[in-house]
Amino acid sequence: MMSNHEIPKDHPRYVSLTIRDAIISGMHQKVVAEAGLIAHGRGEAFDYLLGEKTPDFAIKQEEYAVLSILNAEKPIISVNGNVAALCPEDTVNFGKILNAPLEINLFYRSPEREQAIKKKLIDAGADQILGLDPEYQETIPEISHLRRIVDSRGIAASDCVFVPLEDGDRTQALRRMNKSVVTVDLNPLSRTSLTANVSVTNNIIRAIPEMITIAEEFTQLSKDQLIEKLKKYNNENLLKNALKFMSERLMALSSSDKLII
Amino acid sequence: MMSNHEIPKDHPRYVSLTIRDAIISGMHQKVVAEAGLIAHGRGEAFDYLLGEKTPDFAIKQEEYAVLSILNAEKPIISVNGNVAALCPEDTVNFGKILNAPLEINLFYRSPEREQAIKKKLIDAGADQILGLDPEYQETIPEISHLRRIVDSRGIAASDCVFVPLEDGDRTQALRRMNKSVVTVDLNPLSRTSLTANVSVTNNIIRAIPEMITIAEEFTQLSKDQLIEKLKKYNNENLLKNALKFMSERLMALSSSDKLII
Repeated sequence: MMSNHEIPKDHPRYVSLTIRDAIISGMHQKVVAEAGLIAHGRGEAFDYLLGEKTPDFAIKQEEYAVLSILNAEKPIISVNGNVAALCPEDTVNFGKILNAPLEINLFYRSPEREQAIKKKLIDAGADQILGLDPEYQETIPEISHLRRIVDSRGIAASDCVFVPLEDGDRTQALRRMNKSVVTVDLNPLSRTSLTANVSVTNNIIRAIPEMITIAEEFTQLSKDQLIEKLKKYNNENLLKNALKFMSERLMALSSSDKLII
Repeated sequence: MMSNHEIPKDHPRYVSLTIRDAIISGMHQKVVAEAGLIAHGRGEAFDYLLGEKTPDFAIKQEEYAVLSILNAEKPIISVNGNVAALCPEDTVNFGKILNAPLEINLFYRSPEREQAIKKKLIDAGADQILGLDPEYQETIPEISHLRRIVDSRGIAASDCVFVPLEDGDRTQALRRMNKSVVTVDLNPLSRTSLTANVSVTNNIIRAIPEMITIAEEFTQLSKDQLIEKLKKYNNENLLKNALKFMSERLMALSSSDKLII
């Protein structure tokens, strides 16, 4: 198995291969579920369609996401294995800037995975991790599987949940609970992207650092300014821009004289 | 972990979930490498763009693939872990109809994986598996990694290699060895698709059964008829059709009133 230090920095696919390495290591550390590897591959494919960089529409989506979280009374960040494996430090820093606690909430829940993810986040500088203390665990009927266990201080009490790399069932359940849902998902046609209030169609590796920069600016705004700014964005239109961007990129490639990547 | 029998047959994503299950089981059986799960995910994403069914251009690619293999003097089928996990019976049957032996050739090579894949193919009805007998192993400098070990009766002696789900380095190496390369790869922009002589942009689960049906028809043709038919196809144009198909599908979705999958 190729490990991180063996990928030369000048390799044209250095970033992608390093991330792939982090996901596979994450599985070895029990942080990432097996199905998380397949989900990561789906993301890689959509990132190819973006050209593996952040397009303009995604910056707008990221602004919308930050504004929505900033505008919430009690925002929470729901962390799963892939997020913890891919960008633990950025996720922790994002939570601190936005004053949003982190909660671990998993599809494939096991005490071993919970502790592995908690360790990853604590090592990345997190102070408190919600979701694991039985004293505060609530069961909500709207969510199936073991993910129905949520923290009474976290997701249960929140008005806005940032759930990057989430699946569609969960996103729909959170919406049914009248929570505002913000996600990062490279597939603009996933049920998550289509169901969330705000969908960021970008690689989380780029999205969260960009959202931190945006947050540093937007935390200076007054409540009125936030609300005024929020009016400018429309999730469905931005998703259509994402589809259009991917479509035009494929079309440009298909009409070029010689196919190249 | 969800296993096969738990997926209800009327689930809208039954086929996709069953295949996903086969890949994860394949990893447990040591047939599929960890990176094979990520590769499978990439394929899933491109299959979404096809609408998870075989478009017309892909049928043409499949005809071209079958004709190329039929026209070869010594064709060989190179099998890796994902192929063995996803469609062992179809691969074995395809080899029998086209009179092409199977050779195991792996990126992540280990005796354990080789034996697990061999068992999978033998259980699926294969008579002989090339690639594992040290007596016939040759090392070819054009291919890096452990995949440079090929069978003197198989890939080394072949004029046409059918290598579904292959990576770009290997495809390029086989081309440098002046072999005709036929592949199945859902990403029309992968180096494999762009480097192969014939690329089938389709899910292997659909492609091989369709190619068996095509082969049953084309094995009736004379050599002259084969050569005449072969002139009608152009790999680059077909790949451009694939890109155009995906692009138009995304564009249609982006312009619909209400986004739906």
